[in-house]
Amino acid sequence: MTALRFEALATCGRARRGVIETSHGSVDTPAFMPVGTRATVKCLTPEQIRESGAQIVLANTYHLLLRPGAETVAALGGLQRMMGWNAPVLTDSGGFQVFSLADLRRLNDDGVEFRSHIDGELIRLTPERSIETQNLLGADIIMAFDECPPLPSDVATLTAAVDRTISWARRCKNAHRRSDQALYGIVQGGLDLDLRRKCLTRLVDIGFDGYAIGGLSVGEAPADMWALLDAFANDLPADHPRYLMGVGTPLDLVNAVGAGVDQFDCVLPTRNGRKGYAFTSRGTVRLRNAVHRESRDPLDPECDCYCCRNFSRGYLRHLLSAGESLGATLVSLHNTCFYQDLTRRMRDAISAGTFEALRAEVAETWRRDEANRCSIA
Amino acid sequence: MTALRFEALATCGRARRGVIETSHGSVDTPAFMPVGTRATVKCLTPEQIRESGAQIVLANTYHLLLRPGAETVAALGGLQRMMGWNAPVLTDSGGFQVFSLADLRRLNDDGVEFRSHIDGELIRLTPERSIETQNLLGADIIMAFDECPPLPSDVATLTAAVDRTISWARRCKNAHRRSDQALYGIVQGGLDLDLRRKCLTRLVDIGFDGYAIGGLSVGEAPADMWALLDAFANDLPADHPRYLMGVGTPLDLVNAVGAGVDQFDCVLPTRNGRKGYAFTSRGTVRLRNAVHRESRDPLDPECDCYCCRNFSRGYLRHLLSAGESLGATLVSLHNTCFYQDLTRRMRDAISAGTFEALRAEVAETWRRDEANRCSIA
Repeated sequence: MTALRFEALATCGRARRGVIETSHGSVDTPAFMPVGTRATVKCLTPEQIRESGAQIVLANTYHLLLRPGAETVAALGGLQRMMGWNAPVLTDSGGFQVFSLADLRRLNDDGVEFRSHIDGELIRLTPERSIETQNLLGADIIMAFDECPPLPSDVATLTAAVDRTISWARRCKNAHRRSDQALYGIVQGGLDLDLRRKCLTRLVDIGFDGYAIGGLSVGEAPADMWALLDAFANDLPADHPRYLMGVGTPLDLVNAVGAGVDQFDCVLPTRNGRKGYAFTSRGTVRLRNAVHRESRDPLDPECDCYCCRNFSRGYLRHLLSAGESLGATLVSLHNTCFYQDLTRRMRDAISAGTFEALRAEVAETWRRDEANRCSIA
Repeated sequence: MTALRFEALATCGRARRGVIETSHGSVDTPAFMPVGTRATVKCLTPEQIRESGAQIVLANTYHLLLRPGAETVAALGGLQRMMGWNAPVLTDSGGFQVFSLADLRRLNDDGVEFRSHIDGELIRLTPERSIETQNLLGADIIMAFDECPPLPSDVATLTAAVDRTISWARRCKNAHRRSDQALYGIVQGGLDLDLRRKCLTRLVDIGFDGYAIGGLSVGEAPADMWALLDAFANDLPADHPRYLMGVGTPLDLVNAVGAGVDQFDCVLPTRNGRKGYAFTSRGTVRLRNAVHRESRDPLDPECDCYCCRNFSRGYLRHLLSAGESLGATLVSLHNTCFYQDLTRRMRDAISAGTFEALRAEVAETWRRDEANRCSIA
């Protein structure tokens, strides 16, 4: 296929540095994709996202199908043009949101029927409808429609989800109509290595432009996720991008890259930003804490983003306390820059052969925060 | 005083073009000041405000006194440093907000006692406390503490407010401690020309760096306000800035400048922006209207702001419908640029001797919208 080219430029252990070429430009990997659920990364302009260093953003098929509708996005020129983001975009298939957000009414081998969480409308989503919708949205990378069960789930549930995910993946590939859009398959199987390998083998038989690991960070302990990744991520074909969906914390990222993953998305930097939780070189800073009231210190003295260059912790605390959106914007911006800086450091470390030292440094900084992950995630 | 210098550079009829020099830089007049109530112009970064062409912003003493407190602002380096806005700032005295927002408990010649609209705390504000607070906030231009009655009010109420405003103005001047801050007096008197002239005469006797017209746009018909301005604004000393507080629409601005006013502030561009009402070269555009759903047109084809260069009406409508803050940001940004562009055009027209033609053009564009001013204001 011509919609996507991936090249691994350097490796350090199983960690890979590479580049993905898409219809709207290239993406250096390891890459972190800010999440623009409803075709906007919350509280940030495309200009601010670009300045953070991000080269690709994610948008959600489920949300855009409900509002404004895929036909409207197409009429507005597709996602990239509509968003004023002349760069790569990835859409997920809607599967994860259907299973986590919607009022699910019926699930069978054909697809799912659910009620919109916005207005209760009854909507039917099948592999064909998901791909048709993503063809209309026009992202550079689109995802197969999968069944994503929560964890823990019993082995029968996981097995049924894997079988359905494989069947749906084939239907997705057959339904795909645009040669300028790359299509990734999604591996399910929970924490069961045999199921994961079975799913992957069948997906590779079908053949995709990239392979994603779905169904993680859905209830299991971080250590269990890291162990699964350590055992499994490097099984994904080396000549295609490997994408870990919906993950994660800084420590998740270095562990996953160390296992061979290239691509990530997560709401953490923006969602936590809106709450006043900042990712910094010294760990999490909770800006609403009274200790910051009269602090003239920048959020992160080692960061040179717009927020850290211009504003004090005391001012950010004031904005957040007053509910002023500039607070959410500035901390979201900083967090987005932090994540982009982390991927840049990983890429440099892989090239320099020092990835394990970087991983140890990140682990040291974030170990304490991981202990109370729930309060920051 | 050395805190402020004003120079009139050109006139066209009674309209003046000039420049105000303050401790943090100069302001070209006629000037429109975006309103940063709680030390942030809602939904915009200082960088975006600067790019709009704005040279000075306003902040509210009443709101900042309640949160985060004037001492905290001082500890954070004063308003300009705290806001990351290395340019002129003006603070109002708190008078208008006390009379319009707070639960007023007692008003006498000494001052006012009110309950905070945030937490019910009982707070006392006097001319001395207002100035002391503004000295701590550190704006380049501060305002005398005045009594601002609504309109219509009977003549006894207006007269009492004028007497109190004069007495308080004297106390404000005596209380002022910072030579790097300019102090403006505020003329009250409603629509009563004699009262206005009496108030002004007494304020000029006391002597201020600039003179403001307060107590307008508080319930009276626009035509009544314009008539009062037409009869009175040019009475204000010609060698000082003339500031019309809390006004107004594009038509208000050209009419006031035509009467001799130099300086304005108003929440309209940002408040309307958050609601999805845009000021454009063709009048008001209501972006939530269904007609814009699939429109690829820019908000205003004659505008080259970041919003109009990069985004369609259809996308803005989607953002506003979805409640995404980027919608509020982009329309607020456009509206702020529109107001700055209007003042720039007025300055150019005054220099070129074509101000009346510009006023007629603005009146023609905005007459229809003025007819339903309430729906856009």
